[in-house]
Amino acid sequence: MALGLDIIISEMRVVSRLRKVAALLAWDQETYMPTGGAAARADQLSLILSLAHGRFTGSDFRHSLGQFVDLESGQVTRNNLQIHEIRMLEMTWRDWRHDVSIPVEFIRDLALLTSKAQQVWEQAREKSDFALFAPYLEKIVVMKRQEAEYLGYQDEPYDALIDIFEPGMTSRKLEALFNALRPVLVNLSTQIRQANRPNRRPILTQNYEESIQWEFGLEVLTDMGYDFSRGRQDRSAHPFTTDFHPTDVRITTRLNPNDLAMGLFGTIHEGGHALYEQGLDERYFGTPLCEAISLGIHESQSRLWENYVGRSRPFWMWYYPRLQKRFPGQLGKVSLDDFYAAINAVAPTPIRVEADEVTYNLHIMLRFDLERAMLNGSVAIKDLPELWNAKMQEYLGITPKNDAEGVLQDIHWSLGAIGYFPTYTLGNLYGRQLYEAARQQIDGLEDRIAKGDLKSLREWLHTNIYRVGRAKTADELMLELSGRSLSTEPFNRYLEDKYGQLYDL
Amino acid sequence: MALGLDIIISEMRVVSRLRKVAALLAWDQETYMPTGGAAARADQLSLILSLAHGRFTGSDFRHSLGQFVDLESGQVTRNNLQIHEIRMLEMTWRDWRHDVSIPVEFIRDLALLTSKAQQVWEQAREKSDFALFAPYLEKIVVMKRQEAEYLGYQDEPYDALIDIFEPGMTSRKLEALFNALRPVLVNLSTQIRQANRPNRRPILTQNYEESIQWEFGLEVLTDMGYDFSRGRQDRSAHPFTTDFHPTDVRITTRLNPNDLAMGLFGTIHEGGHALYEQGLDERYFGTPLCEAISLGIHESQSRLWENYVGRSRPFWMWYYPRLQKRFPGQLGKVSLDDFYAAINAVAPTPIRVEADEVTYNLHIMLRFDLERAMLNGSVAIKDLPELWNAKMQEYLGITPKNDAEGVLQDIHWSLGAIGYFPTYTLGNLYGRQLYEAARQQIDGLEDRIAKGDLKSLREWLHTNIYRVGRAKTADELMLELSGRSLSTEPFNRYLEDKYGQLYDL
Repeated sequence: MALGLDIIISEMRVVSRLRKVAALLAWDQETYMPTGGAAARADQLSLILSLAHGRFTGSDFRHSLGQFVDLESGQVTRNNLQIHEIRMLEMTWRDWRHDVSIPVEFIRDLALLTSKAQQVWEQAREKSDFALFAPYLEKIVVMKRQEAEYLGYQDEPYDALIDIFEPGMTSRKLEALFNALRPVLVNLSTQIRQANRPNRRPILTQNYEESIQWEFGLEVLTDMGYDFSRGRQDRSAHPFTTDFHPTDVRITTRLNPNDLAMGLFGTIHEGGHALYEQGLDERYFGTPLCEAISLGIHESQSRLWENYVGRSRPFWMWYYPRLQKRFPGQLGKVSLDDFYAAINAVAPTPIRVEADEVTYNLHIMLRFDLERAMLNGSVAIKDLPELWNAKMQEYLGITPKNDAEGVLQDIHWSLGAIGYFPTYTLGNLYGRQLYEAARQQIDGLEDRIAKGDLKSLREWLHTNIYRVGRAKTADELMLELSGRSLSTEPFNRYLEDKYGQLYDL
Repeated sequence: MALGLDIIISEMRVVSRLRKVAALLAWDQETYMPTGGAAARADQLSLILSLAHGRFTGSDFRHSLGQFVDLESGQVTRNNLQIHEIRMLEMTWRDWRHDVSIPVEFIRDLALLTSKAQQVWEQAREKSDFALFAPYLEKIVVMKRQEAEYLGYQDEPYDALIDIFEPGMTSRKLEALFNALRPVLVNLSTQIRQANRPNRRPILTQNYEESIQWEFGLEVLTDMGYDFSRGRQDRSAHPFTTDFHPTDVRITTRLNPNDLAMGLFGTIHEGGHALYEQGLDERYFGTPLCEAISLGIHESQSRLWENYVGRSRPFWMWYYPRLQKRFPGQLGKVSLDDFYAAINAVAPTPIRVEADEVTYNLHIMLRFDLERAMLNGSVAIKDLPELWNAKMQEYLGITPKNDAEGVLQDIHWSLGAIGYFPTYTLGNLYGRQLYEAARQQIDGLEDRIAKGDLKSLREWLHTNIYRVGRAKTADELMLELSGRSLSTEPFNRYLEDKYGQLYDL
C-alpha cells in the first residue's frame, strides 16, 4: 500500500465508526429506547455526528487527502496506485467535497429547521391542514436551493440534490426514463381497472397470528442467506435496515394481524438491503470500497428480493405449501393461483407505501415533477395540494379525499430529503435489469427458486454486486452485468408479461 | 453562575455524553448484539472511551478547571461560589486528578492485558486450572501496584485502589469494620448450622414459568416507583443496571425456570440501583452533582431494596398472596412462614453470588484479605488457591471442591478490578444503617410496606440520597441521615434479630 494511504484509511475508519455509533443510537431510539430518553438521545446523536463531521472536514484529513488528490478537481495525483485504490480516493474526495462545501452553520440551521418542520408536519397531517406545514416547506425549499448552490450543478439546482443520493443522475436523465415508463404504467393500470377481475386481496386481510408471521419471516430470511450471527430482526413503527459494520447489520419489520403482506414483504424487502450490507468487503471497512454504490442500487437489492423473487410464482411454488401449513385455517383451501393473484393485486391508491408494482412508480413521478418545480421556483408552495391532486387524477385516475392522504402523506420533505424519491423508481428499474442479468447467468434460476434454493441468486449478487462496494459506479455496474446502461425496457416488459397474464389482458 | 463555570460544565457534558454513548454500546452488547458484531463493537467502544478520556485530560479542560481550582492541591481558588458549586469543583478535580495521573500508555497496556486475561480466566475456570491464569494475575497485580503508585496513598498501595471505588475508604478502616463483623457472622452461621432446621429452599426450585416470573418482577418494579417511561428491563447473562441519562436508566435480569429467587431478587436489586440513577438531579447532568456518591452507597440502594425490603416479612405480607395467585400450583399450599424461611435460608456455599445475607460478607472479607496481601506482596500468586481454601474453611467451615468453585469463581481480578469487592459489604452496612434511619423518620414504614406502599420509602430515599448527587461524601451522608458514621452495629443487630427468630436460636 502506498505510504500515507494507511493514514487516510485509518482516519476514515474513525469517522466511519463514529457514524456507525450514531446509527446504533438511532436504531435503539426506534426499537427499545424508553420515550423519556428522547431529549438526551438527541444530544448524544448530535454530538457524535458533529465529531464525525469535524474530523472528516478538518485540517488533518484535508492534509492527508491532499497528498493523493488534487482537492479542487478530485484528480488523483499519485502514480503507482492500484485501480481500486484510485477509485477509493476518487469516491472519498467526492464525499469530502460534499461535506466541506456546506458550511457548518448551514447544517446546524437546516437541522433545527427540519427538526421543527417534522413536528409541524405531523400535526398538519393529523389535522389534514397543509397551510400549517406550508411556511416550513417554503423555508426548507429556500435552504435546499442554497444547498444546491453550495454543491454546484450544471443544468438545474434539483440535479445537485439528486446527485447526493444517486451519483451521476440528473433531472434530464430521470425525465427521459420516466417518459418511457409513464405511458406503459398508465396504460396497464387503466386496462387492469377495465378488466374488472375479482379482487383477491381479502385473502391477505384475514386474521394472521403475529408470532407465526414472525417465524415465517425468519424462515425466508434464513433461506435468503441473511446471517443471524451478524444481524437480527426487531419490530419498529417503520421498517428499516441499519448497519454498524458488515458483521452487525440489523433489520426491523412491523406486523399487522390483519395484513399478512405488510410484515412479510417488509421483511423480505429489508432482508434484501441487509444482504447487501452483510456482503460488503469488511477488509475495506471505513472506505467507499465497503459502501453501497448509491441509494438506487441499494433499493434495487430490496426490490429484487421483495418483488422479483418474493412476488414471483416460482418463489411461492416452494413457500406457499409452507405458509399454508402455518396458517391452515386461513389458507388451507386457497389455491396457489388465488394467493398469487392476491399478493399481486393492482388497484390505484392515494397512498404511495400501499401501492402495487404497477402504480407505485406513478407516485414517484408525481413527486419528481413537484420537487423539480419547487426547486426551480415554477410552482408556489401554496399551490402544491391542488397540483398534487391534479397529477393524481392524471396519473392514477383518483383524487385523495384530503391533504393527509395527498400532499401531506410523506415525511421526506419535512426532513429536507428532496431528491430522494426518484431512487425508489431507480431501484425498481435497476433491480429488474439486474435480476434478468442474474437469470441469464445462473443456470435455471427460477427452477432453483421453485425448489427453495435462494442461495444461488444470493451468491451471484454477493460476487457481482455486494463485494464491489463503490469500486464501480452504478452505470459501470449495469454495463458490466447487463451489457447496457439503465433502461426501462426490462421493467416494462416484465410488468406487461406478468400483469398481462394475471389479468388476462 | 460564576463566569467560566458554564464552560467547565459544558465540556463535562460532552465527556459525559461520550461515556453514556459507550454505556449504550455496552448495553447493546450484553442484550441484543449478534455474536459476530463483537470485534467491531470493541473498536467502537475503545474509540468513544478514548475520545472521552482525551477531552477530559486535554489542555482545554485543564485550562478551564485551572481557573477555579489549584490543580496541585484541589483547593478551590475562587470566591463567591455557592456551596454546591464548590463541591462540584472539588469532585471534578478528584476525578480529573485520577485520570491525568495515569499515563495513556499504561491505560492501553492494562486494557490489552486484562482483555487477554479475561479470556484466559474463562478457560482456566472451565478447566479448573489456576496455573493457567496465574501468570496473568501476576502481571495484573504488578500493574495495579504501579497504578497505586501513580495515584498515591498514605499507608499501603491497596488503599489507592479502594479509594477509586469508595472515596475516603482505606484498608485500615475496612479492617476495623470487618473485625467487628466477622465474629458475629461466623458465630451466627455456626449456630444456624447446629440448629439443624428443615430446609425450605426447595419451595423456590419448583418449576416457575418464566413469563409469569417476568410479570411479577414488573409489578414489583412499578410499585417501587421505577419509571418505565425512563427505563426498561431486558434479559442478559448477568444482571446489571446502566444509564445514559437520568431519563434513560435500564436494568437487566436473568430468569431460571427452576429458581424463583434468581430472577426476582435480581430484579429488585437492579431496581434499587436504577431508582438511584433515575432520581439523580438532571439539571446537573454531566457533573458530579448528578452522580452517585460511591459504589458502596450505590450498592446500599440495591441491597436495601433486595434484602431489607425484599426479604422482609412486611413486604411479603402484601406480595405473597399476589405471588400465590400467579403460581397457585407451586405456592397455593405453602404458608407465608415457610416461604419467608425459604427466601432467607442460610447455608454456607463456596460460591459468593449464591450466598445468603449471613455468609455473604465472609466471602468479601476473604477476598479483601487476599487482595491486600497480593498488593503488599505478602503472598505469592501461586499460593493463592491454598490460601483461599484455608480461609474458606476458617470463615465458612467448607472447602471448595476445586479452583473453579474456589479462587477462580469471580471475573473481577481478570478485569483488573482489585479493590472493588469491599464495596459489596459496605453496601450491606450502609444500606442497613440507612434503612433504619428511614424507619425512624417515616411514620410506620413497615406497616406501609405491608400494605403495598413502597413509595413512601422511595420518596424518602429520593429526597435524602438520590437528589444529593456527590454534593455530600458518604460519611457526611451517614452522619446527616443516621447521626453517626458507618458502623457494623445496625447490620449485626439486624442479622441477630432476624435469624435468631427464623432459626429459633
